[in-house]
Amino acid sequence: MNFPEIDTPSVLVDLDKTEANIKKFQDYCDEHQLPVRPHIKTHKMPRIAKLQIAAGAIGITCQKISEAEAMIAEGGIDDVLITYNILGDKKVKRLRALADKVKLSVVADNIEVIEGLSKGFADAPVPLPVLIECNTGADRCGVDTPAQAADLAVAIDAAPGLHFSGLMTYPAIGENKKVEAWLSSAISLIKERGLNVEVVSSGGSPTMWQAHEMPLATEFRIGTYVYNDGFLVKCGVCGWDDCALTVLATVVSVPSEKRAVIDAGSKVLTSDLLGLEGHGHILGRPDLQIDQLSEEHGRIVTNGQINLKVGDRVRIVPNHCCVVTNMLDHVVLVRANEVEGKADVVARGLVW
Amino acid sequence: MNFPEIDTPSVLVDLDKTEANIKKFQDYCDEHQLPVRPHIKTHKMPRIAKLQIAAGAIGITCQKISEAEAMIAEGGIDDVLITYNILGDKKVKRLRALADKVKLSVVADNIEVIEGLSKGFADAPVPLPVLIECNTGADRCGVDTPAQAADLAVAIDAAPGLHFSGLMTYPAIGENKKVEAWLSSAISLIKERGLNVEVVSSGGSPTMWQAHEMPLATEFRIGTYVYNDGFLVKCGVCGWDDCALTVLATVVSVPSEKRAVIDAGSKVLTSDLLGLEGHGHILGRPDLQIDQLSEEHGRIVTNGQINLKVGDRVRIVPNHCCVVTNMLDHVVLVRANEVEGKADVVARGLVW
Repeated sequence: MNFPEIDTPSVLVDLDKTEANIKKFQDYCDEHQLPVRPHIKTHKMPRIAKLQIAAGAIGITCQKISEAEAMIAEGGIDDVLITYNILGDKKVKRLRALADKVKLSVVADNIEVIEGLSKGFADAPVPLPVLIECNTGADRCGVDTPAQAADLAVAIDAAPGLHFSGLMTYPAIGENKKVEAWLSSAISLIKERGLNVEVVSSGGSPTMWQAHEMPLATEFRIGTYVYNDGFLVKCGVCGWDDCALTVLATVVSVPSEKRAVIDAGSKVLTSDLLGLEGHGHILGRPDLQIDQLSEEHGRIVTNGQINLKVGDRVRIVPNHCCVVTNMLDHVVLVRANEVEGKADVVARGLVW
Repeated sequence: MNFPEIDTPSVLVDLDKTEANIKKFQDYCDEHQLPVRPHIKTHKMPRIAKLQIAAGAIGITCQKISEAEAMIAEGGIDDVLITYNILGDKKVKRLRALADKVKLSVVADNIEVIEGLSKGFADAPVPLPVLIECNTGADRCGVDTPAQAADLAVAIDAAPGLHFSGLMTYPAIGENKKVEAWLSSAISLIKERGLNVEVVSSGGSPTMWQAHEMPLATEFRIGTYVYNDGFLVKCGVCGWDDCALTVLATVVSVPSEKRAVIDAGSKVLTSDLLGLEGHGHILGRPDLQIDQLSEEHGRIVTNGQINLKVGDRVRIVPNHCCVVTNMLDHVVLVRANEVEGKADVVARGLVW
């Protein structure tokens, strides 16, 4: 399974595993009647997004306008949520163009973003649905309190061209009860202001198998699950065998019995650690550790014997597959031992 | 200097600073009669490589064949050293094609690489110059002892199609004396075997101003100096004002008095820390720290007051400019407050 016909380093995507990952989570959500809205940041390829839609997803999530543009360019995807504060006239103009083509919604956590969106959509034929991003504990974006959410809901409702659609959160891991209480309080306050909360969007791969424990959620956004990676294995939500994205690398030097060097460095594996030790898991060799990355070199060390020779190939499950996707212009699609071909990572390298 | 006409996040390259950085180091090396061979991994653009050549560099260094191919495609660069163990028939075939076009040399630290190169160049009109990569203390690639270097020199000399050219090392920081002793010993042993050491290639931006303290070196490879970054500021070889590459980002959320969020995350700043704290230096705001990156969000925190509002722009010097170069399809060239235009990062995203 080391694909001698493929030059290294390459990013491999096993389609059998990808399809199985999509199906497994879709089945779980179907059982719990929870709509799925996959985040395409993990794969950045319309062809994978379409597999997710075909399996039953209600639409997709994007983080950038360029991702949304790339996803809808070839058709087949007609419902896009951009979970980002979109700011600036140029970007809002592109949002308008997107909204003409698909069912588009966005999020906001502040009045400046709402005013900008309203300016761009005031004369739109259909108002733009806007969700309020809520900080339920992860301390990134999001309004800090349910009261602020209610104020912002009223502001969206009053803004020409916008429609208050609901709430969105990226919950902290293991905080479902706290998140549920936060959202419940916000919903009550918003209803008191005479507004309806149609959508409650939650998500996150680390908590994927607890998604049903948050009954307020009307949809679940999920990205990494499509490929899985070292971080999700550590979270306990998948095993190494479920990891669809791997980096294929060649041993280019074995300078000592305790050290080898591969042709995959930080320009393909990235430096993302996510709390893990080492820069990726070498399949079949848990005794080895990638302890150091240069840009084009990965250093492998061991407490035992390195037992690798120059020319050997290794397959590495990266710590964080979503950033590895973003490094190369294409991935190689495989099924078990068969190579299906190259595929462009359509939405990578794009700026905005 | 926050370029309202440029959308964010963008990678800016200040050409005035770039040219000044190139000139300053070239002048220093000219003074010490040390030839410079810049490493293009930092910029991945032929236009910047040509500035380096025009300033007096003897040729360029690449880490991958695709980089070399991209650099010579448009002419003007005719001397390329690839400082990498090139392995595999496909890659060696591409090396042959490169060697037909420019003065090409490569490195090797093991017999398997030498045998592969020899197989591909046995019938070449001109033998391929091969340098031996030496581990003088950095513990990445490289033969471990001067005696091994001498054995490998003899093997290269005996291999059809190859020419033993000299020694190459990426020295550990602050180890010039140890490196010099190592190389001196290897040179003696190689001369005893009847071979000439034409080239001794050393390098490294962190030790750039001590380059003259290693008189054995016949050339100095240097990459990061062209832009500079947070790591080199910490190393003390440049100041913030010398940093030519910056990331321009917009504040998209200010959820609290102690926290703001910008639209630059790990997919542009990367997670490279290189021993630094935080994910980049915000110019003019040393009181702020980028303490956390998601893929498209950077979180800014402070012990004082955040004093940023939604829509504000910041310019960030990344920890490691060489990996930031690699993230987006293009950079924006600027001079002080003027935008010169977009430039494709020609050699980024290429696999091999």
